[in-house]
Amino acid sequence: MQQPLILVTNDDGVYAPGLRALWAAMQQLGRAVIVAPERDKSAVSHSLTMNRPLRVRKLEPDVYTLDGTPTDCVSIGSNKVLAQKPDLLVSGINPGVNLGDDISYSGTVSAAIEGTMYDIPSLAFSLGGESPFDFSVAAAVAAKLATRALSAGLPPSTLLNINVPALPENEIKGIRFTRQGRRIYKNAIQETFDPWGRKHYWIGGGTVHWSGGNNTDEHALRDGYISLTPIHLDLTNHQGLDFLRDHWRV
Amino acid sequence: MQQPLILVTNDDGVYAPGLRALWAAMQQLGRAVIVAPERDKSAVSHSLTMNRPLRVRKLEPDVYTLDGTPTDCVSIGSNKVLAQKPDLLVSGINPGVNLGDDISYSGTVSAAIEGTMYDIPSLAFSLGGESPFDFSVAAAVAAKLATRALSAGLPPSTLLNINVPALPENEIKGIRFTRQGRRIYKNAIQETFDPWGRKHYWIGGGTVHWSGGNNTDEHALRDGYISLTPIHLDLTNHQGLDFLRDHWRV
Repeated sequence: MQQPLILVTNDDGVYAPGLRALWAAMQQLGRAVIVAPERDKSAVSHSLTMNRPLRVRKLEPDVYTLDGTPTDCVSIGSNKVLAQKPDLLVSGINPGVNLGDDISYSGTVSAAIEGTMYDIPSLAFSLGGESPFDFSVAAAVAAKLATRALSAGLPPSTLLNINVPALPENEIKGIRFTRQGRRIYKNAIQETFDPWGRKHYWIGGGTVHWSGGNNTDEHALRDGYISLTPIHLDLTNHQGLDFLRDHWRV
Repeated sequence: MQQPLILVTNDDGVYAPGLRALWAAMQQLGRAVIVAPERDKSAVSHSLTMNRPLRVRKLEPDVYTLDGTPTDCVSIGSNKVLAQKPDLLVSGINPGVNLGDDISYSGTVSAAIEGTMYDIPSLAFSLGGESPFDFSVAAAVAAKLATRALSAGLPPSTLLNINVPALPENEIKGIRFTRQGRRIYKNAIQETFDPWGRKHYWIGGGTVHWSGGNNTDEHALRDGYISLTPIHLDLTNHQGLDFLRDHWRV
């Protein structure tokens, strides 16, 4: 392959250190172009901006930004900013894991979903631990896995959700191919009051419970492994079709 | 079962006629409570508001609204507004179909995803055709299918994405249990200019192409059937795990 073209995006905004670390890692592999949101767009999921036009601004060579969502960045980045379809899309590195049911809210993962819709091999990267984050190990992992994605490819209509534990390189035990776990929240809504004494609700916090048994993304990370979960676009519960045919004759 | 408690929401806002038609239909089945966004939140996908507190306002008996997303409404509605966990969640009726890959952007479907995360049987309703929409047939269909969901249940961790064709009741051919189709866009970004001559991009429009063969949601609707697609929370491509084990030894 000639020098690959790599689209780099995220949901934390164009100046986020995780994005910059990922960009630097991708520059070792080919031409890496950032198209990322102007502002933090965490938890926007797969939002798409259709009610207004979006303006692309060039900030520096191969760094573009627009006032939209990660999904907007991938759509406009791969179809308009780049002269040709990229060979790879990478999203992240998100400061904080994207595991289990939470990936449904994730802008980081949604960017990779959008890339997959355009048949671009797409990888979403997240780093465990807490602030302050050191992205150096995760960036080296990203370079290695992106190289593999360019050579070995991905299953059809499938992205990889990649989570890296917050460990020194020599303490990471290896890689596990995992399935998406189930995250169960309890009391994840706090109550608070405004200056006029009116009750408000604030979503977040609470205790996290995991289920889903062995070989989940969460399980791998807890054991000190890098987790690679293949996520596909087909949301159909194919076994559920049998249930409906049996129980839902209407 | 005693009178069931039904949570009603949407992504078009609390005053949307599709929501009101769905509410009226659910009132035939039990106690139906609306918790819906103040404003139109179409295409927000599974966005969750975590950076500010949300205030719930009661507009009329059993009608609540908050300045947030459909996902926020389900989270706060089922955990805080209602005194107990609802027996059923219905979302819609969306004016316009939610088919194929598009459901990933859909606020209507995301509300049902959030309900499913809380183990509430959840149905998302959308109506085909174009404005002006007549929700009467789809509302009658919703009453029938909600009754069935309450009696027969749903497969585990699975919601139903329901699309109703824009046809008179006697021209609807029946119900099909379908899988999610694949929607492929071409030229879905328009170029436009602001008053200062600067180029902007506007996502939307373009020609729609479908693939995915028979028995898809789109296929059923085109044939004049109501489409019921079981959608589950597990996004793992389980076959993709084999591909990775074979090709991604790292």
